[in-house]
Amino acid sequence: MDIFEKVHSFTAARDAMAAGLYPYFIVLDGHEGAEVRHRGRDLVMCGSNNYLGLTTDPRVKAASRAAIDEFGTSCTGSRFLNGNLELHETLERELAEFCGRQDALVFSTGYQANLGAVSGLAGRGDVVLIDRAAHASAIDAAALSGAKVRTFRHDDPESLRRQLRACPPDAGKLVVVDGVYSMEGDICSLPDLLSVCHEHGARLILDDAHGLGVLADGRGTESHFGLADRVDLLTVTFSKSLASVGGAVIGDADVIHYLRHHARSLIFSASMSPANTAAALAALRVLKEEPWRVDHVHENATYVRDGLRRMGVDVGASSTPILPVPTKDLLDTFGVWKSLLGKGVYVNPVVPPAASYRLRMSFMATHTVDHLDRVLSAFESEFASRPAAVLQA
Amino acid sequence: MDIFEKVHSFTAARDAMAAGLYPYFIVLDGHEGAEVRHRGRDLVMCGSNNYLGLTTDPRVKAASRAAIDEFGTSCTGSRFLNGNLELHETLERELAEFCGRQDALVFSTGYQANLGAVSGLAGRGDVVLIDRAAHASAIDAAALSGAKVRTFRHDDPESLRRQLRACPPDAGKLVVVDGVYSMEGDICSLPDLLSVCHEHGARLILDDAHGLGVLADGRGTESHFGLADRVDLLTVTFSKSLASVGGAVIGDADVIHYLRHHARSLIFSASMSPANTAAALAALRVLKEEPWRVDHVHENATYVRDGLRRMGVDVGASSTPILPVPTKDLLDTFGVWKSLLGKGVYVNPVVPPAASYRLRMSFMATHTVDHLDRVLSAFESEFASRPAAVLQA
Repeated sequence: MDIFEKVHSFTAARDAMAAGLYPYFIVLDGHEGAEVRHRGRDLVMCGSNNYLGLTTDPRVKAASRAAIDEFGTSCTGSRFLNGNLELHETLERELAEFCGRQDALVFSTGYQANLGAVSGLAGRGDVVLIDRAAHASAIDAAALSGAKVRTFRHDDPESLRRQLRACPPDAGKLVVVDGVYSMEGDICSLPDLLSVCHEHGARLILDDAHGLGVLADGRGTESHFGLADRVDLLTVTFSKSLASVGGAVIGDADVIHYLRHHARSLIFSASMSPANTAAALAALRVLKEEPWRVDHVHENATYVRDGLRRMGVDVGASSTPILPVPTKDLLDTFGVWKSLLGKGVYVNPVVPPAASYRLRMSFMATHTVDHLDRVLSAFESEFASRPAAVLQA
Repeated sequence: MDIFEKVHSFTAARDAMAAGLYPYFIVLDGHEGAEVRHRGRDLVMCGSNNYLGLTTDPRVKAASRAAIDEFGTSCTGSRFLNGNLELHETLERELAEFCGRQDALVFSTGYQANLGAVSGLAGRGDVVLIDRAAHASAIDAAALSGAKVRTFRHDDPESLRRQLRACPPDAGKLVVVDGVYSMEGDICSLPDLLSVCHEHGARLILDDAHGLGVLADGRGTESHFGLADRVDLLTVTFSKSLASVGGAVIGDADVIHYLRHHARSLIFSASMSPANTAAALAALRVLKEEPWRVDHVHENATYVRDGLRRMGVDVGASSTPILPVPTKDLLDTFGVWKSLLGKGVYVNPVVPPAASYRLRMSFMATHTVDHLDRVLSAFESEFASRPAAVLQA
């Protein structure tokens, strides 16, 4: 059989394009953070993960430019062999300190941080137990590891307990959960999950991509629960609150030392560019100095959440800057998405298998009241022109 | 069993540190491309993949800084959902055009480009056949895909033929090879490998990380053999000749369209930062305008290769800017590496399982004759102080 056969039979995307309802790879020709430009029109960006609005902060931009001047545009090699800057190690030290941990290890993407952590620690004979709603990078990491993979019901400690009981007693057990779930905005039940892990001698990796910069003065999900330093290993990304691209694994010094020599996605991949490294470091420093940004992103999300609730829109129970609005089906999701885009509001349309049908919005510390009112007004006019059921689950 | 047990029993790196022979994660506090600074000393960098020396080119740096000014330091999201700049698409168009192909798809790392290409196309029921010396990212990609993985002898079309014959006739078959092998510097036997693939209805992915920018006026391994547009799919990285971090898959429009919607390492990872994207694009434009750089990198490698041969050093048969010098064992490898570092020359020590014991050097278009003479003189004094056998296989 020709392995390219599937290429020729894939028509879903072209069908959506033909129907004028294709919502992916929207080309942006301008990017100001809270506003973006698409085909010459300015849109309020409610579909990014730029929680603190730091991608356009003058200090972050200046630090990133200065790193290009000092070190060039790339180290053209892995940190292992030839691309390890003092700058990478400074970011690791300050990140570990911020999270109250001993050490950190910086990767070129958050995706590769998860790959490196999970497949660096787990292998044949081990079991990786993963929340069904965990991020795709954690799922890929588990698949890559060669360990047996078991999933448990979303944020359900009892389901995790059942899965742990079913593991061979002499297998190494690694549990992987998100701190804050990207699609629903819910915070994981960390205390109960940790208890279950301890009962069964399992280690817990917490992917705090959406918790860092957002919960507990930005210190993340561990601190939110008063459990600092209790999780076995943290992974984070720099492409959300920290205004860059990259990621890190954060934890005890000996675990980090081990991963430094066993994480293939670190050893066999070029190091973070000087520009990206300096941007993440500068953003981290701003986050430490300006905790009001964390408050502000929550206030902004609450403003829109309350406004939508007043209109009778189902906005779920999220207590984070992520705000899901359920939709009915594929056509409804893409239809409302397109209508909002036409009204100047950029949101993310989500369809299975990523999650159930919804629009996903997320807010930023740098959204102004004017931005938020434009969002509410777009929803209001959308809502007024449709039967109420369409925007309710 | 505690899955962290392996962490506590790992002592190899600490043993090497205690012996003063630990050669990894060398901290650089300055980076000028052809020279780097380590603990206040300037070293000639012969261990990077910065073939054209473009990471410090004023045009590349200026383009990268300008992208930060225009778009900020990150799109904080995937190209799929919210991070797709016109800049990414421009890079894709110019890259496809340069390689004489219909389309390209840009990823945030070269590692993820291989992951996306192989695991996007192959899955359960398929077979991925991979050269034993292929890059780690291709090996990880094959493992992640869920397909059956078969390896064949390094650059041996007959071994590939035997493996293809052993595949179930109705399985999809995907062959993955490097264009230029990183550790030995040898160019793959592309015409023969292609013939064998055609005989058996297999598709070929060519990872041209070390061929792009280096062979055939920089157009890569396909063009080197006069086989432009004959390989089913190319993958490349931007962290070698193209002075950035990132990668791409390049090929027919329908294959790229399919991968755009099926490559998880694209869809679930933040898009290349504006700075990295602009750097790769600017470097590509310089490469097109200044083909003399490609000649120059070969001349520089030849200068050192000839010089070492005159000293009686075994430098193998590489015809690329990669120059391997065999060493005896672990202690010899780390010992010679350290001695050369002391003499101001930065090379890569390589030990199994990455490859057999060796020092790996690679040269740049921007190495001056003075740099190259410093390298030769360091080898000469190293060579003079040791029995000849030590530096010969």
